[in-house]
Amino acid sequence: MNAKDLVAAFAERLEARDWEGLAELLDPDVVYEIPQTHERIRGSDRYITFNIEYPGEWHIEPKVVLGDDHDGCLLFRWTVGESEDALAIAFFEVAAGRITKVTDFWPEPYEPPAGREHLVERWE
Amino acid sequence: MNAKDLVAAFAERLEARDWEGLAELLDPDVVYEIPQTHERIRGSDRYITFNIEYPGEWHIEPKVVLGDDHDGCLLFRWTVGESEDALAIAFFEVAAGRITKVTDFWPEPYEPPAGREHLVERWE
Repeated sequence: MNAKDLVAAFAERLEARDWEGLAELLDPDVVYEIPQTHERIRGSDRYITFNIEYPGEWHIEPKVVLGDDHDGCLLFRWTVGESEDALAIAFFEVAAGRITKVTDFWPEPYEPPAGREHLVERWE
Repeated sequence: MNAKDLVAAFAERLEARDWEGLAELLDPDVVYEIPQTHERIRGSDRYITFNIEYPGEWHIEPKVVLGDDHDGCLLFRWTVGESEDALAIAFFEVAAGRITKVTDFWPEPYEPPAGREHLVERWE
């Protein structure tokens, strides 16, 4: 599988809590990182445990899946029960048909800086 | 140009402040959105003005560029003088060889929730 197919399968198996199927996509030495918190998890066993233990009734819904021979990316809607509903992004590195790195980004709402109101509309 | 080539050219021309070259990549009715602030800018003229007016000595350095016939994405390092140094993400929609939509994500640092320290290391 190239990176795009791996990313699509990753999203599907994660949503399905198919932990054995997910493990088949991962290099045993996969590295998971969240640059915003400077957190890193090493190894597919620990990374899958992290997902199994993640609290709440979470769901991921892919919006954009892209990939080439080395890199992939996933834009997804992330919901947790009725308390969270956001877009998030994961980047992937791939080698020899397995995912070797997952990098997650969790953008939070913020108030825009002043000075661009003359160009911008806001929704909702 | 497919989406990948458009994204690569977009990053290069934005960094070069090549506003005419940038305009050539954009559909005149391009839509720019920041989901985190619910801001939207309509039209290539206003979107280029937004970039021209963006304050500070900003630079973008592409880290990952991906794309197919319809969608593209850019992971980039964003620096503003010595005050900001972060990773950010843009997604692109493309039609008829022009960028029709740009969606930006600006993830901010945050403190990780408790409960996963047994799986995680932190850097720096």
